[in-house]
Amino acid sequence: MYFLKEDETLDDLQLNGIHVIQKKEAFRFGVDAVLLANFAKVKKGMKAVDLCTGTGIIPFILAGKTEVKSITGLEIQDEMVEMANRSVEYNKLEDRVSFINGDLKNLELLKSMEKADVVTVNPPYKLQNSGIINPSDKNAIARHEVCCTLEDVIIACRILLKDNARMFMVHRPERLADILCLMRKHKIEPKVIRMVHPNTKKAPNIVLIEGQRDGGKFLKWEAPLYVYNDQGGYSDEINKIYGREGV
Amino acid sequence: MYFLKEDETLDDLQLNGIHVIQKKEAFRFGVDAVLLANFAKVKKGMKAVDLCTGTGIIPFILAGKTEVKSITGLEIQDEMVEMANRSVEYNKLEDRVSFINGDLKNLELLKSMEKADVVTVNPPYKLQNSGIINPSDKNAIARHEVCCTLEDVIIACRILLKDNARMFMVHRPERLADILCLMRKHKIEPKVIRMVHPNTKKAPNIVLIEGQRDGGKFLKWEAPLYVYNDQGGYSDEINKIYGREGV
Repeated sequence: MYFLKEDETLDDLQLNGIHVIQKKEAFRFGVDAVLLANFAKVKKGMKAVDLCTGTGIIPFILAGKTEVKSITGLEIQDEMVEMANRSVEYNKLEDRVSFINGDLKNLELLKSMEKADVVTVNPPYKLQNSGIINPSDKNAIARHEVCCTLEDVIIACRILLKDNARMFMVHRPERLADILCLMRKHKIEPKVIRMVHPNTKKAPNIVLIEGQRDGGKFLKWEAPLYVYNDQGGYSDEINKIYGREGV
Repeated sequence: MYFLKEDETLDDLQLNGIHVIQKKEAFRFGVDAVLLANFAKVKKGMKAVDLCTGTGIIPFILAGKTEVKSITGLEIQDEMVEMANRSVEYNKLEDRVSFINGDLKNLELLKSMEKADVVTVNPPYKLQNSGIINPSDKNAIARHEVCCTLEDVIIACRILLKDNARMFMVHRPERLADILCLMRKHKIEPKVIRMVHPNTKKAPNIVLIEGQRDGGKFLKWEAPLYVYNDQGGYSDEINKIYGREGV
């Protein structure tokens, strides 16, 4: 097929016919990206930026399910950007979705970009010093803080957001002290947290967090999201998020 | 009855026959204190301090359910301390439970106290500027940050704890950013969080948090505690905590 290379697949997002190209062997989008795109409050006419965008999965989901005016994905790996650009072409989303090949630590680049109404980010979760990693490995870049730290991500959000605009991040609960302290440090006030648990009996393993640039102090907790129900099947809410209502 | 004043009640904790005296009209112990006493890891032979101790409910529960060597409650309201001392006498716990009438902002007092293996605290939850409060009101002192702020509490924990010893606090989830940032600021690392929810469908309304003085960074999340089950009765875990197994 014209759009695809040997080591790639074209995956249907089940959202207005939108597809995304992914590497067969590399980091593939998972539940985190889908939950983040569902958690983010993106209204009609907004301009959005997605950091650490990878294949562009979050821009493509948001283009499919919201009336976002435009969304720009920033990604450090040129291979991924080239692939994401082919997904744009395949989906004919050139007027709403674009990608920039760049480093979110490049503050001049960030400052040159148009301010955003909303920033989304599914950053690498693991500290650089946790576990043995290969810095040339694409999966390591997606999972570990090789190319950017959590603080780099939050600084980038601060620069990109309009006054009082909101960021939405998916991360791991064990990093929550880091997340909240770094957000406060860079004056992005944590406003909403939603924990995601495998089921009602398990500890949370994903955290969704909304922050507001220069926001006032009040942190709202939402009801938990459980991925599986007590019978071991997907919960009703997960089926709804994945567009499998009534399945 | 000899031990009781007109406006007081003597309440059976259902723990080794231990009772606690409370005011009929004032702030009475609730689920928060019981959950905190259950959450705290208090081992045989430990010396403990309980801050904002009020009626002494947490020292009395810990004396009843653990092999704590000694536990000292610190309380700013002299009336409460006088009442707590009568509870000590009633329970014949003079060798293990004692109370100090003092202000946790009095750093000289704290420094004069023996270092603790564990500190527990059920502090006032509400910011001083939230809602209309009467500073002479005993309930206001227990609920609002009239006499001490969250930062005062954490500074007190830092001073009272032995190296690497742990504190256990019950608080409100909407204050979690404040809690985690202030703990980090005063070098008490957040180590364990357990959220308490009314039931599986609701957002958490109580947070239990364990911190370690100069601890290493790793935050573990425990499975949630639900107060009520799906049928609207108390959950099995709550029944167990309240000693109502098999009820």
